[in-house]
Amino acid sequence: MAKVKKQPRPKAETPKGFRDYFGADVAERKVMLDRIAEVYHLYGFDALESSAVETVQALGKFLPDVDRPNEGVFAWQEDGDGDWLALRYDLTAPLARVFAQFRNDLPTPYRRYAMGPVWRNEKPGPGRFRQFYQCDADTVGTASVAADAEICSMLSDTLEAVGIPRGDYVVRVNNRKVLNGVMEVAGVFDPADPDKNAAERGIVLRAIDKLDRLGPDGVRALLGEGRKDASGDFTAGAGLSADQAAIVMGFMQAKAASGAATLGNLRDLVTGSTIGTEGVDELSSIAGLLDAQGYGADRIEIDPSVVRGLGYYTGPVFEAELTFEITDEKGRPRQFGSVAGGGRYDDLVKRFTGQAVPATGISIGVDRLLAALRAKGRMDSNDTGPVIVTVMDRDRMADYQQMVAELRNAGIRSEVFLGNPKNFGAQLKYADKRKSPVAIIEGQDEKDRGVVQVKDLILGAKIAQSATLDEWKSQPAQFEIARSDLVSELRRLLAAQK
Amino acid sequence: MAKVKKQPRPKAETPKGFRDYFGADVAERKVMLDRIAEVYHLYGFDALESSAVETVQALGKFLPDVDRPNEGVFAWQEDGDGDWLALRYDLTAPLARVFAQFRNDLPTPYRRYAMGPVWRNEKPGPGRFRQFYQCDADTVGTASVAADAEICSMLSDTLEAVGIPRGDYVVRVNNRKVLNGVMEVAGVFDPADPDKNAAERGIVLRAIDKLDRLGPDGVRALLGEGRKDASGDFTAGAGLSADQAAIVMGFMQAKAASGAATLGNLRDLVTGSTIGTEGVDELSSIAGLLDAQGYGADRIEIDPSVVRGLGYYTGPVFEAELTFEITDEKGRPRQFGSVAGGGRYDDLVKRFTGQAVPATGISIGVDRLLAALRAKGRMDSNDTGPVIVTVMDRDRMADYQQMVAELRNAGIRSEVFLGNPKNFGAQLKYADKRKSPVAIIEGQDEKDRGVVQVKDLILGAKIAQSATLDEWKSQPAQFEIARSDLVSELRRLLAAQK
Repeated sequence: MAKVKKQPRPKAETPKGFRDYFGADVAERKVMLDRIAEVYHLYGFDALESSAVETVQALGKFLPDVDRPNEGVFAWQEDGDGDWLALRYDLTAPLARVFAQFRNDLPTPYRRYAMGPVWRNEKPGPGRFRQFYQCDADTVGTASVAADAEICSMLSDTLEAVGIPRGDYVVRVNNRKVLNGVMEVAGVFDPADPDKNAAERGIVLRAIDKLDRLGPDGVRALLGEGRKDASGDFTAGAGLSADQAAIVMGFMQAKAASGAATLGNLRDLVTGSTIGTEGVDELSSIAGLLDAQGYGADRIEIDPSVVRGLGYYTGPVFEAELTFEITDEKGRPRQFGSVAGGGRYDDLVKRFTGQAVPATGISIGVDRLLAALRAKGRMDSNDTGPVIVTVMDRDRMADYQQMVAELRNAGIRSEVFLGNPKNFGAQLKYADKRKSPVAIIEGQDEKDRGVVQVKDLILGAKIAQSATLDEWKSQPAQFEIARSDLVSELRRLLAAQK
Repeated sequence: MAKVKKQPRPKAETPKGFRDYFGADVAERKVMLDRIAEVYHLYGFDALESSAVETVQALGKFLPDVDRPNEGVFAWQEDGDGDWLALRYDLTAPLARVFAQFRNDLPTPYRRYAMGPVWRNEKPGPGRFRQFYQCDADTVGTASVAADAEICSMLSDTLEAVGIPRGDYVVRVNNRKVLNGVMEVAGVFDPADPDKNAAERGIVLRAIDKLDRLGPDGVRALLGEGRKDASGDFTAGAGLSADQAAIVMGFMQAKAASGAATLGNLRDLVTGSTIGTEGVDELSSIAGLLDAQGYGADRIEIDPSVVRGLGYYTGPVFEAELTFEITDEKGRPRQFGSVAGGGRYDDLVKRFTGQAVPATGISIGVDRLLAALRAKGRMDSNDTGPVIVTVMDRDRMADYQQMVAELRNAGIRSEVFLGNPKNFGAQLKYADKRKSPVAIIEGQDEKDRGVVQVKDLILGAKIAQSATLDEWKSQPAQFEIARSDLVSELRRLLAAQK
């Protein structure tokens, strides 16, 4: 038989922009998501896990990054000139599809939460991944601002439940209708012809969203002729006159010392605009509901600088910001920033059904929130390694397996070393790599005497690092116990190590 | 401005072969997966969540359904003639890639578990979906059969942990080496030229795998010239002579009353084949280890009819079967069948590195195991609906929100009705659809008197179904309580409803 030519070896690489999560990373995320789900569930929301794959048609184009020509999704065509399918890029577009599809069977309002990966076909970069987790809660089918208020209070409760202390976060609330009112006053929005000047308003929206990054001057430039950035790239502006831009800038700076004062400023700014006044009324109702439940400005506040980049929001918008400082890559202190955002979107279901279905919701950036919890040292998943039963005599595997069976029955995480047992040092190195708290040793001598050696690896590591010989003598890192006491002695030791 | 031509409305449909999971479905799967993860973790396995997307090159072609020309994966090319990417079709191929990529940082052996969706680009059919969950545990980097034995005992523990009682399942074990030995004896395997007759052996393998479905005659036909099925479709056979086929059939029927007797039969069958004898020795070691830990034939047994369809297995293979009967769609009783399978695969990592890395593992079919637990009535996720606070007076939303805030602080799942409150009947219908245990009513009259009405919806449903008026009088489904007793009274009522 002729030799078949060898194929070149495939590369063992995660695709660009993707990553794998190991051990503690998975465990920590699970702990956090479980806590979030508990709050959502307590609030009456039901779980939904929609298909990861959608038709491109159903997904539509609602990606935040409208500046980029790329569609931003991973898409492919079904065999035989079939439908175009794509990976979901968020959890909101699939919710709109699900609600439209199953609306006759679902309760209205439909309150659902969802958590899972989403995919974006974007240029990968440092810290910028093409698959990441989102965790959403939405109420579909009610226009009541009580639903918006509830999303804010739930978000506040959620952040505290996962371990962000009160005072270290703030949920900011604004309303797109107020912004539209301001635009109406500034002459770039006509309620009788809402499509007119849509492009300009889009630029205004994104400019306001960049206030943090660009500062007032940068935003003012984008409201006017445009802005050249440090690299020389030019971003076209909305073309507003100085007077028009001043009105918008006034809106962004309308935040006052109290919520009531902020609302007063906004009411003044939108005088004469019906939609603007409606927006201020809604914000006022939301503030009233939250006050009545004790969610004060230390947790939730009205902030006109919050607009959210997405085009589909139609009313209240929310953003959760972490206010504590971290050190950035250049060693400078900066606020941690946004970890969740959302708002009211009344037209997403209408795409499918023709009927307006009001909806509101929130999306938590899971990776960012996890990073925040780690930065605050609040994420010890307590994921200790297993007890390792070493193999001194490979003919007695059954004995060693019997030991771990006993330990596991007692709820103690454990395993027999299953690699090549020839080199005992390699067994201890393995235990070290697994962050094992304890290694068990039973050679023929121990077996004959009915005992086992217990190696306290936590203490052993401490001794190796710093202790003097005297200390070592009084509390040896290795000691002998009766084989019959294995479970009780390990229970004692593991509890003492905590 | 000219009217823009309206786009046709997108269809609100899950793509063909995909589905969404709602409320209890998600909750039940989570309960089951959490229990499985607990056992895996106790056994010393660490979590891994690899990227859902892989390069096509890294994935390779290891799909079980080799009869189909279609590659079986959802794939697309990166922009600009880039890499071909694809959704993972199982959790084993990504594990091989991860181990090859990170082998210098990972402990050896590397014991990992993984759970998540996988995708298959197959023709969808009834009960056949293109996205489904798998839940795997694998040990990479050890040739020890103790690792195989452990996978079997862990699988047994796992099934009991999720709620399959002992006696309702059996983990069957076999060894591909024994099968190769049988093939050697039958003259279709030559250890000196292992590639020879590979196609024939593939057909034999798949034929044995179909014993349950086709019976001995069907398998014998596939071992010989081929087989025409009821629809008239012809499947080509392996072309074995009657004598050769008889040897293979003897192998499949080698199972005896005890494990020792089965091993004896197998040893006889492979007399003269080195690899076959090695396989029987391995099976014998596995049986010894399991016996020593008390896993008898009531839980784990040697069964030569288990071969597993996948081509990459090289040694022991496992299958977990549920032995209780269910009623099929035609009303006939049948055994529930397989819910998990796996085995030893020593060459998957070698594809990347050139070095052989022995590995063994198991994959649980999550949807099938869930279906089994539901069929046995063992899956009550206890996911009751929320308490619904109805809205009698829409100006008092803050009062109602205050009630649910109190209830939620007490850990009672609850919500204010957020739909249109005009029609009170619609509010109760909503509560019904949510499977709410209780509705709370507070009109102006109640508010003035400092009371609320409590509607016991569980009892109400019972009364509506069957009770006489007398019973209704003694235990009314609606009663009045002091507003200040809301939390304590609901706690009492919800506990009594259990």
